[in-house]
Amino acid sequence: MEARANEGLWEYRNQRLRHLVRHAYENAPAIRAKFDSAGIKPENVQTVKDLDKIPVTTKDELVRLQKETPPFGGFLATPLENLEKIFLSPGPLFDGGNVKERVSRLVEMFDLVKVGRGDRVMVTYSYHLVPPAHWMDEAIRALGATAIPSGAGNTDSQVKIMHDLEVTGYVGTPSFLNLIIKRAEEMGYDFRGDFKLRFAMTSAEMLPPSLRQSFEEKYGIQVVDIIGTADVGWFTYECEQKSGYHLSRDIIVEIVDPATGKQLGPGELGELVVTPFDDSYTLIRFGTGDLSAYTDEPCPCGREPFRLLGMKGRVGEAVKIRGMFVHPNQLKQWLADFPEVKRFQLQVDQVQYRDVATLRVEAEAGTDKERLSAAIISRFPQVCMVKLDKVEFLPPDAISPEAKVVVDQRKWE
Amino acid sequence: MEARANEGLWEYRNQRLRHLVRHAYENAPAIRAKFDSAGIKPENVQTVKDLDKIPVTTKDELVRLQKETPPFGGFLATPLENLEKIFLSPGPLFDGGNVKERVSRLVEMFDLVKVGRGDRVMVTYSYHLVPPAHWMDEAIRALGATAIPSGAGNTDSQVKIMHDLEVTGYVGTPSFLNLIIKRAEEMGYDFRGDFKLRFAMTSAEMLPPSLRQSFEEKYGIQVVDIIGTADVGWFTYECEQKSGYHLSRDIIVEIVDPATGKQLGPGELGELVVTPFDDSYTLIRFGTGDLSAYTDEPCPCGREPFRLLGMKGRVGEAVKIRGMFVHPNQLKQWLADFPEVKRFQLQVDQVQYRDVATLRVEAEAGTDKERLSAAIISRFPQVCMVKLDKVEFLPPDAISPEAKVVVDQRKWE
Repeated sequence: MEARANEGLWEYRNQRLRHLVRHAYENAPAIRAKFDSAGIKPENVQTVKDLDKIPVTTKDELVRLQKETPPFGGFLATPLENLEKIFLSPGPLFDGGNVKERVSRLVEMFDLVKVGRGDRVMVTYSYHLVPPAHWMDEAIRALGATAIPSGAGNTDSQVKIMHDLEVTGYVGTPSFLNLIIKRAEEMGYDFRGDFKLRFAMTSAEMLPPSLRQSFEEKYGIQVVDIIGTADVGWFTYECEQKSGYHLSRDIIVEIVDPATGKQLGPGELGELVVTPFDDSYTLIRFGTGDLSAYTDEPCPCGREPFRLLGMKGRVGEAVKIRGMFVHPNQLKQWLADFPEVKRFQLQVDQVQYRDVATLRVEAEAGTDKERLSAAIISRFPQVCMVKLDKVEFLPPDAISPEAKVVVDQRKWE
Repeated sequence: MEARANEGLWEYRNQRLRHLVRHAYENAPAIRAKFDSAGIKPENVQTVKDLDKIPVTTKDELVRLQKETPPFGGFLATPLENLEKIFLSPGPLFDGGNVKERVSRLVEMFDLVKVGRGDRVMVTYSYHLVPPAHWMDEAIRALGATAIPSGAGNTDSQVKIMHDLEVTGYVGTPSFLNLIIKRAEEMGYDFRGDFKLRFAMTSAEMLPPSLRQSFEEKYGIQVVDIIGTADVGWFTYECEQKSGYHLSRDIIVEIVDPATGKQLGPGELGELVVTPFDDSYTLIRFGTGDLSAYTDEPCPCGREPFRLLGMKGRVGEAVKIRGMFVHPNQLKQWLADFPEVKRFQLQVDQVQYRDVATLRVEAEAGTDKERLSAAIISRFPQVCMVKLDKVEFLPPDAISPEAKVVVDQRKWE
């Protein structure tokens, strides 16, 4: 992909956004109400930067609005009979999104593994009530490949399918693929030699680096991890560089302060807010409740520089230190890079109205504590966008394995 | 539907059959082998009558052939990469049939309940591994209606979907629909008043007359029962007359002697053998293992007279009396019309090389035995195509409730 192709990308998105906003304002009562209460008109939203003016819609709000105005809470901008399929996702939330829009994003992502005629792809997500398997199924067939709607469960049948049909692709969770491979080995197969699986598109749970490595190096499977939500579909994917998650061209993603809904800058942890270009079910500025951060440093792959740095946890679980969110998972992921750190806990206190952050660490015996402390303190702001005040070393077993990762000792009085 | 439209029907089927036979012979090794071993060429099969010349393929044979020549046992007459979807049905048997062909038969059947734009139809079959839900899903969307892939299970969600989305159609088993209705009533709904369900297309299990009556009369739901097999799809449906099951125009059905594969006449119980016009997975003369019979007396609906008289049981469970099959279920269904018969058992003996059939009956107290015996003996041949030698009355509780319906006492020495 050439850098040149990215030049017009945000202008393309801005154009689709203007169309979406006008269409939704005219046809979706909930969107019109949102605009009215914020005192804005469609013409006030010309570019992604202007999205700030529209309040974020949270999942809780969506559940409430669907209950008040069933089935779609006023977000449907098309007659109900135009919907090809309707789903019910946990919440419970009805989902009547435009299938073509969601499938086209997947088609874009499948280009990474060059899916096409001759590929046979197992879809192991559930097809019942929830939509992900249906989008995958359609995308695979749209590319001329054969879809195998296997669902999850019944591992022996999955092994038989993968083997006898010489399956080339897998979509599903990484853990279920691992289960299939292990079962095949128990059944006496040499997975790499006896099977033809060449790629796996994983999602719906964290992909542990060791598992990815095993898929790639031991079994020769190309792994692409993708991220989405049940409400808007998949929209972001890792390229070969594994340096973050690029966006589909057909989505707008913002990282915002969960308290204010205002857009944050690169590296700042905030809520992931998405705006798909779906003119059926118009979830403009849908707050996913996930915490993430983005970078806009160029990626060697040549795709647009803007990309997400993975999911860092859920909004409710984060703490705010001097105005910046810090999430337990973010810390866990980062500190895994320090093998000397056996256990840790971040403690937040308030001293004369100022937040004080202390990282309490149990280190391996023989650790150079001064050097470790300096390394952590110097790199902490790059990860959490906020200064760490001190590192405190504790004796072995001072931190129980069940202890909370972040302890907030501030009193809000 | 006009009678005139039926005149060309068998010629249409013969024409499709000739094309199918040529195509399969040239492209599917298993079909060529079948023709060769029977000493015939495609040109020997010009009409449905000629199908007799081709050996029936049983399910067991298909399982064996798929194992010997995976994945499709030599019945695939198209490159594997042309298949849109592949399934795995119990057996286990791979299924790579032409989706369009199976969907078009359903589209034909949906005309009975006038499915179209504005309809919202719940599909409660499983979408995992097996194909039926996928065919339904495609047919519903092909007709401009909205598909709701609900699957089975989670009855509360099914009630919510049916109510909040104002679902107009249901496809699935009759018992699961009954479960949904009962659950809705437990939740305090008045099903007829609070829901918009106008039709149910039932299948996959017997539809008890009392349940049909309850759906229709108590809840105002139009019920259409359809029959098919996992391997070839649905192909036969009840019209408003409920006088048997009409065929889709795009299938050939024969009722044959399971021992010889020769076609039987109207009213004769035999194996149901189907030939779908599928040029991908060419199951020519697939023996379903189901026992049925057909009639060719005109139906008041004006559709073609040829129709099946329901499924009477499985081939292996039937006994042959003087060359004619008699099946336990066939007897059970028929004898349900005699309220005086409390319990019964058909006993088959051999006396001087001749089969002797005796119906042993426990009758209600006060029954006019002579009259009952005469009625049963006179009507038996119309149901079972064979003469009943005698009716023997037994004292109460002589027949255990667990006793076999048909007892074969003949010795094959």
